[in-house]
Amino acid sequence: MVIETIIGLVAATLTTISFLPQVIKTWKEKSAKGISQFMYILFCSGVLLWLVYGLVIFDLPVIVANAVTLILASTVLYFRIVYH
Amino acid sequence: MVIETIIGLVAATLTTISFLPQVIKTWKEKSAKGISQFMYILFCSGVLLWLVYGLVIFDLPVIVANAVTLILASTVLYFRIVYH
Repeated sequence: MVIETIIGLVAATLTTISFLPQVIKTWKEKSAKGISQFMYILFCSGVLLWLVYGLVIFDLPVIVANAVTLILASTVLYFRIVYH
Repeated sequence: MVIETIIGLVAATLTTISFLPQVIKTWKEKSAKGISQFMYILFCSGVLLWLVYGLVIFDLPVIVANAVTLILASTVLYFRIVYH
Protein backbone atom coordinates (compact mmCIF):
# COMPACT_ATOMS: atom_id res chain seq x y z
CA MET A 1 0.00 0.00 0.00
CA VAL A 2 1.35 3.44 -0.89
CA ILE A 3 2.14 5.92 1.90
CA GLU A 4 -0.67 8.38 0.98
CA THR A 5 -3.26 5.59 1.16
CA ILE A 6 -2.09 4.69 4.68
CA ILE A 7 -2.17 8.38 5.74
CA GLY A 8 -5.67 8.77 4.26
CA LEU A 9 -6.96 5.63 5.99
CA VAL A 10 -5.58 6.67 9.41
CA ALA A 11 -6.96 10.21 8.89
CA ALA A 12 -10.42 8.87 7.97
CA THR A 13 -10.43 6.48 10.94
CA LEU A 14 -9.48 9.29 13.39
CA THR A 15 -12.04 11.85 12.16
CA THR A 16 -14.73 9.13 12.06
CA ILE A 17 -14.24 7.63 15.54
CA SER A 18 -13.56 11.06 17.13
CA PHE A 19 -17.31 11.61 17.69
CA LEU A 20 -17.63 8.44 19.83
CA PRO A 21 -16.10 10.04 23.01
CA GLN A 22 -18.58 12.95 22.60
CA VAL A 23 -21.51 10.52 22.25
CA ILE A 24 -20.42 8.62 25.40
CA LYS A 25 -19.75 11.82 27.43
CA THR A 26 -23.09 13.44 26.52
CA TRP A 27 -25.00 10.20 27.15
CA LYS A 28 -23.35 9.68 30.56
CA GLU A 29 -23.81 13.30 31.70
CA LYS A 30 -27.35 13.56 30.25
CA SER A 31 -26.39 17.13 29.37
CA ALA A 32 -25.28 18.79 26.14
CA LYS A 33 -24.60 22.20 27.65
CA GLY A 34 -21.88 24.01 25.71
CA ILE A 35 -22.41 22.05 22.50
CA SER A 36 -23.49 24.17 19.51
CA GLN A 37 -26.69 22.77 17.95
CA PHE A 38 -26.07 24.83 14.80
CA MET A 39 -22.61 23.23 14.45
CA TYR A 40 -24.14 19.73 14.45
CA ILE A 41 -26.94 20.73 12.02
CA LEU A 42 -24.32 22.04 9.55
CA PHE A 43 -21.94 19.13 10.19
CA CYS A 44 -24.59 16.39 9.81
CA SER A 45 -25.91 18.04 6.60
CA GLY A 46 -22.34 18.12 5.25
CA VAL A 47 -21.63 14.49 6.16
CA LEU A 48 -24.98 13.42 4.61
CA LEU A 49 -23.86 15.12 1.38
CA TRP A 50 -20.44 13.40 1.64
CA LEU A 51 -22.36 10.11 1.89
CA VAL A 52 -24.42 11.02 -1.22
CA TYR A 53 -21.14 11.98 -2.95
CA GLY A 54 -19.66 8.57 -2.03
CA LEU A 55 -22.75 6.79 -3.39
CA VAL A 56 -22.67 8.83 -6.65
CA ILE A 57 -18.97 8.12 -7.34
CA PHE A 58 -19.43 4.65 -5.74
CA ASP A 59 -16.37 4.87 -3.48
CA LEU A 60 -16.64 2.36 -0.61
CA PRO A 61 -14.23 4.06 1.87
CA VAL A 62 -16.08 7.41 1.43
CA ILE A 63 -19.45 5.64 1.90
CA VAL A 64 -18.39 3.69 5.03
CA ALA A 65 -16.50 6.56 6.76
CA ASN A 66 -19.34 9.04 6.24
CA ALA A 67 -22.10 6.56 7.15
CA VAL A 68 -20.41 5.87 10.52
CA THR A 69 -19.67 9.59 11.10
CA LEU A 70 -23.31 10.45 10.26
CA ILE A 71 -24.62 7.92 12.82
CA LEU A 72 -22.31 9.27 15.56
CA ALA A 73 -22.75 13.00 14.81
CA SER A 74 -26.55 12.58 14.48
CA THR A 75 -26.58 10.90 17.89
CA VAL A 76 -24.80 13.96 19.38
CA LEU A 77 -27.35 16.24 17.65
CA TYR A 78 -30.22 14.09 19.02
CA PHE A 79 -28.76 14.25 22.55
CA ARG A 80 -28.27 18.03 22.14
CA ILE A 81 -31.99 18.44 21.36
CA VAL A 82 -33.25 15.97 24.01
CA TYR A 83 -30.94 16.82 26.94
CA HIS A 84 -30.79 20.60 26.57
CA MET B 1 -19.22 21.30 -13.49
CA VAL B 2 -20.47 17.75 -12.98
CA ILE B 3 -23.10 17.05 -10.32
CA GLU B 4 -20.78 15.02 -8.03
CA THR B 5 -18.24 17.89 -7.98
CA ILE B 6 -20.98 20.32 -6.86
CA ILE B 7 -22.18 17.85 -4.17
CA GLY B 8 -18.58 17.39 -2.97
CA LEU B 9 -17.93 21.15 -2.83
CA VAL B 10 -21.13 21.86 -0.86
CA ALA B 11 -20.37 18.92 1.47
CA ALA B 12 -16.79 20.16 2.08
CA THR B 13 -18.01 23.74 2.70
CA LEU B 14 -20.64 22.57 5.22
CA THR B 15 -18.36 20.25 7.25
CA THR B 16 -15.61 22.93 7.23
CA ILE B 17 -17.67 25.95 8.35
CA SER B 18 -19.72 23.87 10.82
CA PHE B 19 -17.10 24.41 13.55
CA LEU B 20 -17.45 28.21 13.38
CA PRO B 21 -20.72 28.35 15.42
CA GLN B 22 -19.02 26.18 18.09
CA VAL B 23 -16.00 28.53 18.20
CA ILE B 24 -18.29 31.59 18.57
CA LYS B 25 -20.54 29.92 21.19
CA THR B 26 -17.63 28.71 23.35
CA TRP B 27 -15.83 32.07 23.06
CA LYS B 28 -18.98 34.01 24.04
CA GLU B 29 -19.89 31.72 26.97
CA LYS B 30 -16.27 31.38 28.15
CA SER B 31 -17.22 27.79 28.99
CA ALA B 32 -16.60 24.50 27.22
CA LYS B 33 -18.60 22.36 29.60
CA GLY B 34 -20.09 19.37 27.84
CA ILE B 35 -17.51 19.34 25.04
CA SER B 36 -15.37 16.18 24.89
CA GLN B 37 -11.66 17.08 24.92
CA PHE B 38 -10.79 13.57 23.69
CA MET B 39 -13.11 14.06 20.69
CA TYR B 40 -11.23 17.21 19.66
CA ILE B 41 -7.79 15.60 20.19
CA LEU B 42 -8.79 12.71 17.89
CA PHE B 43 -10.54 15.01 15.41
CA CYS B 44 -7.69 17.54 15.16
CA SER B 45 -5.14 14.71 14.74
CA GLY B 46 -7.29 13.25 11.95
CA VAL B 47 -7.72 16.61 10.18
CA LEU B 48 -3.95 17.24 10.47
CA LEU B 49 -3.38 13.90 8.73
CA TRP B 50 -5.98 14.85 6.05
CA LEU B 51 -3.97 18.03 5.51
CA VAL B 52 -0.74 16.00 5.17
CA TYR B 53 -2.62 13.69 2.76
CA GLY B 54 -3.69 16.72 0.70
CA LEU B 55 -0.10 18.01 0.60
CA VAL B 56 1.25 14.57 -0.43
CA ILE B 57 -1.25 14.10 -3.28
CA PHE B 58 -1.13 17.91 -3.88
CA ASP B 59 -4.90 18.37 -4.03
CA LEU B 60 -5.81 22.04 -3.41
CA PRO B 61 -9.46 21.52 -2.26
CA VAL B 62 -8.32 18.88 0.29
CA ILE B 63 -5.53 21.22 1.51
CA VAL B 64 -7.77 24.31 1.85
CA ALA B 65 -10.78 22.51 3.44
CA ASN B 66 -8.62 20.73 6.02
CA ALA B 67 -6.44 23.76 6.80
CA VAL B 68 -9.56 25.82 7.64
CA THR B 69 -11.15 22.94 9.60
CA LEU B 70 -7.89 22.45 11.54
CA ILE B 71 -7.78 26.14 12.54
CA LEU B 72 -11.43 26.09 13.71
CA ALA B 73 -11.32 22.71 15.49
CA SER B 74 -7.97 23.56 17.16
CA THR B 75 -9.55 26.78 18.45
CA VAL B 76 -12.37 24.74 20.04
CA LEU B 77 -9.75 22.41 21.59
CA TYR B 78 -7.78 25.43 22.89
CA PHE B 79 -10.96 26.94 24.43
CA ARG B 80 -11.82 23.52 25.92
CA ILE B 81 -8.44 23.45 27.72
CA VAL B 82 -8.44 27.14 28.74
CA TYR B 83 -12.07 27.60 29.80
CA HIS B 84 -12.67 24.27 31.52
